[in-house]
Amino acid sequence: MLLADRISRLQPSPIREILNVVDKPGMISFAGGLPSSDSFPCISVSDLDHRQLQYGATEGDADLREFVAKDLANRGLHVSADQVLILSGSQQGIDLVAKLMIENGTQVAVESPTYLAALQVFSLFGAEYQPFTPATTNLLINCKNAPALTYTVPTFQNPTGHCYTTDQRKALAKACDMNGSVLFEDDPYRELAYDDCDRRPVCSFMQQQNWIYQSSFSKTLAPGLRLGYLVCSAQLYPALSWLKQAADLHSNRLSQHIVLEQLQAGNAGERMVSIVAGYQRKRDVFAAALEKHLYNLATWQVPSGGLFFWLRLLSDNPVDTQKLLAKAIECNVAFMPGEPFFPAHDDESSYIRLNFSHAGDDEIAKGLQTLSTLISAELD
Amino acid sequence: MLLADRISRLQPSPIREILNVVDKPGMISFAGGLPSSDSFPCISVSDLDHRQLQYGATEGDADLREFVAKDLANRGLHVSADQVLILSGSQQGIDLVAKLMIENGTQVAVESPTYLAALQVFSLFGAEYQPFTPATTNLLINCKNAPALTYTVPTFQNPTGHCYTTDQRKALAKACDMNGSVLFEDDPYRELAYDDCDRRPVCSFMQQQNWIYQSSFSKTLAPGLRLGYLVCSAQLYPALSWLKQAADLHSNRLSQHIVLEQLQAGNAGERMVSIVAGYQRKRDVFAAALEKHLYNLATWQVPSGGLFFWLRLLSDNPVDTQKLLAKAIECNVAFMPGEPFFPAHDDESSYIRLNFSHAGDDEIAKGLQTLSTLISAELD
Repeated sequence: MLLADRISRLQPSPIREILNVVDKPGMISFAGGLPSSDSFPCISVSDLDHRQLQYGATEGDADLREFVAKDLANRGLHVSADQVLILSGSQQGIDLVAKLMIENGTQVAVESPTYLAALQVFSLFGAEYQPFTPATTNLLINCKNAPALTYTVPTFQNPTGHCYTTDQRKALAKACDMNGSVLFEDDPYRELAYDDCDRRPVCSFMQQQNWIYQSSFSKTLAPGLRLGYLVCSAQLYPALSWLKQAADLHSNRLSQHIVLEQLQAGNAGERMVSIVAGYQRKRDVFAAALEKHLYNLATWQVPSGGLFFWLRLLSDNPVDTQKLLAKAIECNVAFMPGEPFFPAHDDESSYIRLNFSHAGDDEIAKGLQTLSTLISAELD
Repeated sequence: MLLADRISRLQPSPIREILNVVDKPGMISFAGGLPSSDSFPCISVSDLDHRQLQYGATEGDADLREFVAKDLANRGLHVSADQVLILSGSQQGIDLVAKLMIENGTQVAVESPTYLAALQVFSLFGAEYQPFTPATTNLLINCKNAPALTYTVPTFQNPTGHCYTTDQRKALAKACDMNGSVLFEDDPYRELAYDDCDRRPVCSFMQQQNWIYQSSFSKTLAPGLRLGYLVCSAQLYPALSWLKQAADLHSNRLSQHIVLEQLQAGNAGERMVSIVAGYQRKRDVFAAALEKHLYNLATWQVPSGGLFFWLRLLSDNPVDTQKLLAKAIECNVAFMPGEPFFPAHDDESSYIRLNFSHAGDDEIAKGLQTLSTLISAELD
């Protein structure tokens, strides 16, 4: 049997593999990026219009595209509804952009660390990585091999929680404008802001080169609806919409209907305020529990938004956090090892990512106490 | 800007492009494969369980996978639920299989003509085609370049409507077993059977090589729910499920919930009988109208199932049916030109595909009368 060469680079997502393991009673999971199910809206659909059940437009339903374009204008990214492509979740945007841009040896600039399921897709298509950090975007300007694509999660980054400052946003846009790479901005967490910070899309600072911006309805409405969107500079739109057509014809129409209804509901603003307040409280509970249980074992920054704490374990020797995870799962606690978030996996160890939105308050205390015991033993 | 090489081969689907044009009042469309909206179930969802809104398993919801496995066993294809992968519509299966198998120069055996959106995806990934017909599968056995993948729509094929005989099914399975290619069987129309014919999956006759079988809930429930599934030989499953993970994490959970509920409903059998009877009646109305209006202008076979008539225009010279379509649209009638269904586009002309399920009875008569006038003028 002859499989395509790319399959030799295909890896399962470590997150999804862990989620399979941890989905059992009694497990305290800090592993996934699961939104709290308390935050989900009440959804009722009665006597659904037959139009929502028929084939629909590849680009998405017109009303939802209009809504997205207006919403983005309020955030400083001025696009027409014609530039909006509704996605079957923002993971699909990563797949489409990889198809558009990446083949064997394509140079892709990515933050180190970055969202691991983006690395999974980029690697499948043959990307070679040029790692950067929010502080080193200027290095992308005069590098030897200019990247074709620059991927970033600038707002409450996954996994670090970092939010780019205004200067960092401008510097990244400038680097792409100068080196000619397409900027691909992934922005699923922007609504989950607990402290004041500049969240203007980096794409809104682009002046010359092409760009793609995407976000998701998974974090603020419900992930099971699998709906997100991308917008892009006009030149890229036809190819991306044809790739969407080839990938799954069009997005789920029932989800598009439900999401638009929720976005336009009279209580949508209130609902968002209450979700964000709930997550902020969880972040603070988690931060206090971390201070109590891990203060001498790891360092971290309290994130201004998003769903994760990113910890570096205070060890003189590298800690294999995959092995630590195996021990933790035996004690009914799960987390994400840090290694898979790094474009060059061997570079970094001793990091772990902890999600604070899913576990209950009691579970947070209990789970971090367990981790504390395990990490202490590891560091001794 | 450096795009991937494959983008030079990216084409929009002619069907979706035509659907954009014909979605206007007064247009009689024989173009798409749209199921009749009369056939859609009444769907109400009240107070949705929060589990249906959370992230779910890449492979699909367990109950739905069980249902699919049992249903396939009744059709002669014996698989376990572990071999079922729920898809965001069966177009997604084509994308996943292309990623699994196809890179530049990969030999792919396809029927000529075949489903054009499969050609769209295979070509994007760099396929080279080895065309065959239901009568010539034996030619695949000792060909010079054995195909890596063999794609077939054996039951009420799109566009021809052909249903493989038992002997043809066995011969195709044997050809794949002998030449070592993976058989990819696409079976969206199998429920829409109006005459008696063998519909056992060709995959059920495979004895040695790997195979992938897929079907869809779009034709018998509702396309807007974007749900289908694939099953495959066990060896291929891990890679296909990881590719699904990378493509969109998992399928829409609300759709999975609704589809399972519909499949298990007390009236599911009755509903199916009534849908099939409705389509059969439409086929017969269409067949009679064709006899009346086009008997001396074209040849066709009345299809035993599916949604299409496939006509060859009786012309001594090749008819450019793309140009004919432009004229027809001016007269408010749309159809699918035949050329894009052929793997080597230049090979064949003078074919058109007519969908009989979407237009009303009066529209069928009026639309075919218009086509008759236009085709007569063309043939003169």
